[in-house]
Amino acid sequence: MIFASDNWAGAHPAIAAALSDHAGGFARAYGNSDLDRTVTDRFSKIFEREVAVFFVSTGTAANSLSLVSVNKPGGVAFCHREAHMTEDEAGAPEYFTGGARLCPVDGPLGRIDPANLDAAIARYPAEFIHSGRPMAISITQATEIGTVYGLDDIDAVAEVARRHNLPLHMDGARFANALVSLDCSPAEMTWKRGVDLLSFGGTKNGCWCAEAVVLFDPGMAREFAFIHKRAAQLFSKSRFVAAQFDAYFAGDLWLETARYSNAMAARLASHLRTSPCARLAWEPQANEVFAILSADVSAALQQKGVVFHPWHAPRGFAEEIAPDEAVCRFVTSFATTQKDVESLGALLA
Amino acid sequence: MIFASDNWAGAHPAIAAALSDHAGGFARAYGNSDLDRTVTDRFSKIFEREVAVFFVSTGTAANSLSLVSVNKPGGVAFCHREAHMTEDEAGAPEYFTGGARLCPVDGPLGRIDPANLDAAIARYPAEFIHSGRPMAISITQATEIGTVYGLDDIDAVAEVARRHNLPLHMDGARFANALVSLDCSPAEMTWKRGVDLLSFGGTKNGCWCAEAVVLFDPGMAREFAFIHKRAAQLFSKSRFVAAQFDAYFAGDLWLETARYSNAMAARLASHLRTSPCARLAWEPQANEVFAILSADVSAALQQKGVVFHPWHAPRGFAEEIAPDEAVCRFVTSFATTQKDVESLGALLA
Amino acid sequence: MIFASDNWAGAHPAIAAALSDHAGGFARAYGNSDLDRTVTDRFSKIFEREVAVFFVSTGTAANSLSLVSVNKPGGVAFCHREAHMTEDEAGAPEYFTGGARLCPVDGPLGRIDPANLDAAIARYPAEFIHSGRPMAISITQATEIGTVYGLDDIDAVAEVARRHNLPLHMDGARFANALVSLDCSPAEMTWKRGVDLLSFGGTKNGCWCAEAVVLFDPGMAREFAFIHKRAAQLFSKSRFVAAQFDAYFAGDLWLETARYSNAMAARLASHLRTSPCARLAWEPQANEVFAILSADVSAALQQKGVVFHPWHAPRGFAEEIAPDEAVCRFVTSFATTQKDVESLGALLA
Amino acid sequence: MIFASDNWAGAHPAIAAALSDHAGGFARAYGNSDLDRTVTDRFSKIFEREVAVFFVSTGTAANSLSLVSVNKPGGVAFCHREAHMTEDEAGAPEYFTGGARLCPVDGPLGRIDPANLDAAIARYPAEFIHSGRPMAISITQATEIGTVYGLDDIDAVAEVARRHNLPLHMDGARFANALVSLDCSPAEMTWKRGVDLLSFGGTKNGCWCAEAVVLFDPGMAREFAFIHKRAAQLFSKSRFVAAQFDAYFAGDLWLETARYSNAMAARLASHLRTSPCARLAWEPQANEVFAILSADVSAALQQKGVVFHPWHAPRGFAEEIAPDEAVCRFVTSFATTQKDVESLGALLA
Repeated sequence: MIFASDNWAGAHPAIAAALSDHAGGFARAYGNSDLDRTVTDRFSKIFEREVAVFFVSTGTAANSLSLVSVNKPGGVAFCHREAHMTEDEAGAPEYFTGGARLCPVDGPLGRIDPANLDAAIARYPAEFIHSGRPMAISITQATEIGTVYGLDDIDAVAEVARRHNLPLHMDGARFANALVSLDCSPAEMTWKRGVDLLSFGGTKNGCWCAEAVVLFDPGMAREFAFIHKRAAQLFSKSRFVAAQFDAYFAGDLWLETARYSNAMAARLASHLRTSPCARLAWEPQANEVFAILSADVSAALQQKGVVFHPWHAPRGFAEEIAPDEAVCRFVTSFATTQKDVESLGALLA
Repeated sequence: MIFASDNWAGAHPAIAAALSDHAGGFARAYGNSDLDRTVTDRFSKIFEREVAVFFVSTGTAANSLSLVSVNKPGGVAFCHREAHMTEDEAGAPEYFTGGARLCPVDGPLGRIDPANLDAAIARYPAEFIHSGRPMAISITQATEIGTVYGLDDIDAVAEVARRHNLPLHMDGARFANALVSLDCSPAEMTWKRGVDLLSFGGTKNGCWCAEAVVLFDPGMAREFAFIHKRAAQLFSKSRFVAAQFDAYFAGDLWLETARYSNAMAARLASHLRTSPCARLAWEPQANEVFAILSADVSAALQQKGVVFHPWHAPRGFAEEIAPDEAVCRFVTSFATTQKDVESLGALLA
Repeated sequence: MIFASDNWAGAHPAIAAALSDHAGGFARAYGNSDLDRTVTDRFSKIFEREVAVFFVSTGTAANSLSLVSVNKPGGVAFCHREAHMTEDEAGAPEYFTGGARLCPVDGPLGRIDPANLDAAIARYPAEFIHSGRPMAISITQATEIGTVYGLDDIDAVAEVARRHNLPLHMDGARFANALVSLDCSPAEMTWKRGVDLLSFGGTKNGCWCAEAVVLFDPGMAREFAFIHKRAAQLFSKSRFVAAQFDAYFAGDLWLETARYSNAMAARLASHLRTSPCARLAWEPQANEVFAILSADVSAALQQKGVVFHPWHAPRGFAEEIAPDEAVCRFVTSFATTQKDVESLGALLA
Repeated sequence: MIFASDNWAGAHPAIAAALSDHAGGFARAYGNSDLDRTVTDRFSKIFEREVAVFFVSTGTAANSLSLVSVNKPGGVAFCHREAHMTEDEAGAPEYFTGGARLCPVDGPLGRIDPANLDAAIARYPAEFIHSGRPMAISITQATEIGTVYGLDDIDAVAEVARRHNLPLHMDGARFANALVSLDCSPAEMTWKRGVDLLSFGGTKNGCWCAEAVVLFDPGMAREFAFIHKRAAQLFSKSRFVAAQFDAYFAGDLWLETARYSNAMAARLASHLRTSPCARLAWEPQANEVFAILSADVSAALQQKGVVFHPWHAPRGFAEEIAPDEAVCRFVTSFATTQKDVESLGALLA
């Protein structure tokens, strides 16, 4: 019963098949194959406007290069305190930008609070050279703790971005999970709300390795091509990423796998709601479920072969848990079986 | 008839099959799966000593992070003037090292001349702070122009490295092609001669995307883990690279594909030796063949569907070619068919 | 009545005279003059052990290069939330380190709270590659808000540093002011307590431009020489900085000017304690006095020609001030006249 | 008899006096004093157009930050093979730019040959992401070997810059010496010929420490302010640099000291022309004289107390010197006495 992470899953059979299908023959290298172009066009269709797309090897690369593309001397990027880019990327965004700063912003349930954001930005007046200056805002959709920014939430952050003339980045490592949760279109969740650049993740939702930076202003592509290559992110056999995205989008597979993993998470949440020995930390909106478990229950589950990770309690949440309790994360994916969810439910009951 | 590059080929069927075979199930992420460990052990066996192995997404990443791991303030790395790291990586090594310098060293036929190397190093006295200081030497095996450093050649460079107390890096993007060309063991071609770190490439020789940094001093692994992660090179589903290497090494597939592509290159060279309308630029030793073609012949071949790249003439070679001639590169791979080679031979005859 | 900053003052007459005295003749450049050596020896005597000394142009350079010298991939340095390096250096420490992170630590009255420090470090487990890893701790002495770490306070931070095996840096932009405030020896305030490297400032205390990095482990000097030169911080006519330090130390001028400016601050504080229209924000221990002024009083003082800066209220302090009040900073220096302090006192009375 | 370098000299009495004159009183810090503004205006007058001026601590900083201001991902700057920025700055330009490359260009007598420059640029096609791309050209005026670009020479380089749409930087560490050598106006030697940014040096020509970046497009100032501060180059007591420039320009002192030191060099050259035991390496045009000395003569001069530096023979010059000979550099300055020049002349006779 593996609920450790969606990246413990392998590849969806359709993705694996697509890779095999494209194994033969010759194709132009370095992003210039026909398939690369087809897939880029597909992105444009999905987002209902012309976009520039660059494949990268990891979400960390997508986030880092997104920031590089809007970087300024003395630049400060604002993200949620729990954001992956500040918590789990070993300083990669700072490294790739040559020292830009990530300023953590608090907000309940994994979402940046717009008022806090405003206050954080105010600490870096745009023309005051001593402190550094704002250069970007990044939101994570779905968030690190399994919640989702509603369209209104994105609007509120985007309004702050607009007011301060700052580009808005979305870390979409779990883009599909958020999208189906909101039941809106990719365009509605991004550029129509003011998102300027996007880390678009496919890996957690059924691909081997398919991550991309999507630029809603294709005019940025010329510079980005150098940023991308200089960062060692230009695959020679780029078509192998393209092939994954091709299968990912075909027949809306990506939405189907996302809906499935969200449903598995919802089902697990329902088990937790009725469990006598554990409780939901907060309501899940995507494919991550956070539960509060006592040490005993946690040990018992592990003993039974349930794999999951303890998680640090978000700021302000610590008081809601007892000393022998901990927040634990359960992640579902396309590969999670209903049987495993029900078995875990039975253990919790 | 595609001779453009070995990275225009796809994946060897055995590699593609291995990917599919490992698509299912769950595995620990970030390099910690059983398969990751198995493959790392396999590297140690192949190299006849314990090595540390880090998978990366591109050869550029492998080269860049190798240099980062031996970097010093004011550091200068010495490589051949035509080396991939200085010619074709858009400044990635300089970027990842935060500004280390690549000092080009000349030498005939793509190989660093040890005397030139010594002279180049002498321009950077180790303790003279004004000029910067030597920090590494890098050789490319096989070289960018399809030749190979003989074991004696490696010894000669390694002797210079030792004398100046400099780590020796090998860019092995075409490691297998060089290895079978020399018909020696991986250990003999590397650490037994004084190579300290290696960019080990599998992509050009039949993988989708399988590149690794091999550290012959496993004590460097602890630091390298941070260098690797910070550079956005830690794959979450790392096992997909491991799976490729697993199949690559199984039954010595890697040596077989390398021998095959070298043989195709040798056959093409024999056609060029007897061609009335083209000539070999120099003798190939791996899977790249360089020919001197007149503009007319070049155009005629392209017209017939032969795909290849013009190449800039190495330093000192320009006088050997007429004004209307150009050096052109033909690359073979596991995917090159004998039929295509013979067809090209017929065109050249 | 200038209380804007100690760097609005010029140079002490003895410093100016020393510069003139050394204007003539020839001397070896780049830190190799006799005077450079004499002054370095003087530093060793003052600190009662052999130290390595590197002159730099600004305190920002001293702080940044100190961090560079102990930097690691994925490194995180811990400093107080209000520290100059994180608030007022435009990201220079992050830039020079190629992306190391500054992690703010809270603590009352400008001093790092050791328990908070421990908790902050715990968020970056030393071997967990995803989050980055601790690489240094920095304290500011005197602090940014005019308080001083007592020897016990330094001990407490140093104990945390030792336990986590982290180098301890002291930002001594106002080193002399803190030293005379504690009435201890330079050795007692630094390496005897566990400080490993020091930004030693002379500029704010009577020099034109005299800042230095002091390394208590002279074995670090060899690497630092390259760090220093590569950062464009090696003055050709380095002796002009040496000359300032020479005069600064002669006859303990530096202690005298620091005592004087601290005394001026104490006198100003006493005026504030009895003022009917303003109050001390907290007790000053060096040469900076923070007062809480209403907007009316603030405007009235400025009208009378008093120059000072509004300051942002430290975290947790905001509730102590009324909506129309602000924290304001008054800084004294060797150049502050008793007359000005008394005139300001009269205005406050 | 010190001919080691112009930075072995101290400060001109007028510079020293200006420093003392401005020692008292208070002035706004960080470049905002009245004197800072006066001096900036003075620069604009001298250059006959509005310029932006940023004081920095070293010529290395001026060069490095100039490149930062025009930097691009994958950027390559072109300079002469013997240029200070590539030979004597320990990789600072690469460091500050986060890894831009310096591409050496050959040319006789220390000057970039425009045809070689064109060829070097051609190796980096502007839109070819694999190799990096041109981002700046830098010329050194006067050159590292004591020659000067004539106005026609600058025109020729500027024409290449314009054609490739590249900014042209001038390293003017010895700007005044070149200016009086050409007997033209500062405007004529810079922006009227196409120079976009300038490292303006005062240190070698009589100041303690007075270097500046001059931007002929003041619109670049806003970004440069952050570049400058982030690089730890914003002096708090900036007026001390301003004071030096104030005296430097007053009554055209700078031209007078440059003319004097050039005259001393010319006189030394005339001694070499008639010397039976040494000869001029090439004709000096500024304040550096290069002579070819046998080992015996070199030793004899040193024995007599003449201090000078051996220099590496420029590319292509080695064949003009015998095995026991070496190129040696003699530098004059405002502080060089006629007596010393004549004494050296007598020794050479």
